[in-house]
Amino acid sequence: MKQRSYEHLNCSVAQSLNVLGERWALLIIRDALFGAKRFVQFERSLGIARNILTTRLNTLVNEGLMEKRTAVETNHPEYVLTQAGRDLEPVLLAITHWGDKYRPNPDGVRLIFKERATGIPIQPMHAVTEDGRSLQPGELTAEVGPGGDPPLKPSSK
Amino acid sequence: MKQRSYEHLNCSVAQSLNVLGERWALLIIRDALFGAKRFVQFERSLGIARNILTTRLNTLVNEGLMEKRTAVETNHPEYVLTQAGRDLEPVLLAITHWGDKYRPNPDGVRLIFKERATGIPIQPMHAVTEDGRSLQPGELTAEVGPGGDPPLKPSSK
Repeated sequence: MKQRSYEHLNCSVAQSLNVLGERWALLIIRDALFGAKRFVQFERSLGIARNILTTRLNTLVNEGLMEKRTAVETNHPEYVLTQAGRDLEPVLLAITHWGDKYRPNPDGVRLIFKERATGIPIQPMHAVTEDGRSLQPGELTAEVGPGGDPPLKPSSK
Repeated sequence: MKQRSYEHLNCSVAQSLNVLGERWALLIIRDALFGAKRFVQFERSLGIARNILTTRLNTLVNEGLMEKRTAVETNHPEYVLTQAGRDLEPVLLAITHWGDKYRPNPDGVRLIFKERATGIPIQPMHAVTEDGRSLQPGELTAEVGPGGDPPLKPSSK
C-alpha cells in the first residue's frame, strides 16, 4: 500500500515533518518567535482563513510545540511556544538563509539576523564540529545509530 | 481574500516553503543528499505512488533544486541535486537534530552526523557569530533589511 504520511519512515526528518510539514505550521512558529501570541496577530500576519488557523494552532498545541493559556490581564487566549517550539529557531534560520540566497527579494535581504551584543550579522547556518570549527558539506559523514535503519548508504561526497 | 499559498508573504521562510513545503520535497532532497539518483531509488525509499513522485521530481527540477539528466553508462534518467539543492543540507541537519530530540526513536539516535576527518559528532545546529562563536537563541536579534517588510517586531527575548 502506498503511504500518505511519513509515519512509516524511521527518520528524524520524516518524523519532524509530520508536524512541521503541515501547511502554515512553520510560519506560525516564525510569527510566535517574533512575539505573536494572539489569534488575531497570527491571522493578520498570515492572511489565512480563521478555521484553518484554528486547526493549525490546535495541532501545534497537541503536538507540544505551543501552549494555549489565558492572558492574566486581558483574559484573552494566547498561544505561546514551548521549549520544543522555541528550539525550531535553527530550522527557521537555516530556511531563512537558504531563501535569502535562492528566493531573494530584488530589493535586498528582508531580515538580517545579528548578534544582539555586537550588531554583527551571524554566519549562514552551517555544521559545527564538537570543538567549534565550521564544516563544509563534503566534510560531513553519517553513521547509523542504535535507532537507525536508513534505506540508503550515505554518499561518499 | 484569504490566501492559499505563501506567495504574498515577503519573507524568506515563506518563499522557501513555497517549494520546500510541498509534501515529500524535503525527503526527496534528503535521499538525494544520501546518493539516490534514480526514480526507483526514491520510490523504494519513500514508498510513495509513482505519479506523486513524478510530480514532485518535476517540481524540484522546475524550481532549480534538481537537474534531470541521462546517465551515460545506463541511459537511465537521473535526478541530481543542483547547488541550490545541496545547499539545503543545513536545513535538513537542523530538522534532523530537532527530530532527534523531540521525535526520537526509543532505541536511540537514528543517524549520527559526524566530521569525516575525526569521526566526532557535530554539534546540534545553532547560530554562529561572524567570528565563530556559538550563540544561544536569546543572543540573537533581527533587523529589517532593504527588502524587508516584517509584519511584527522581533520579540525582545
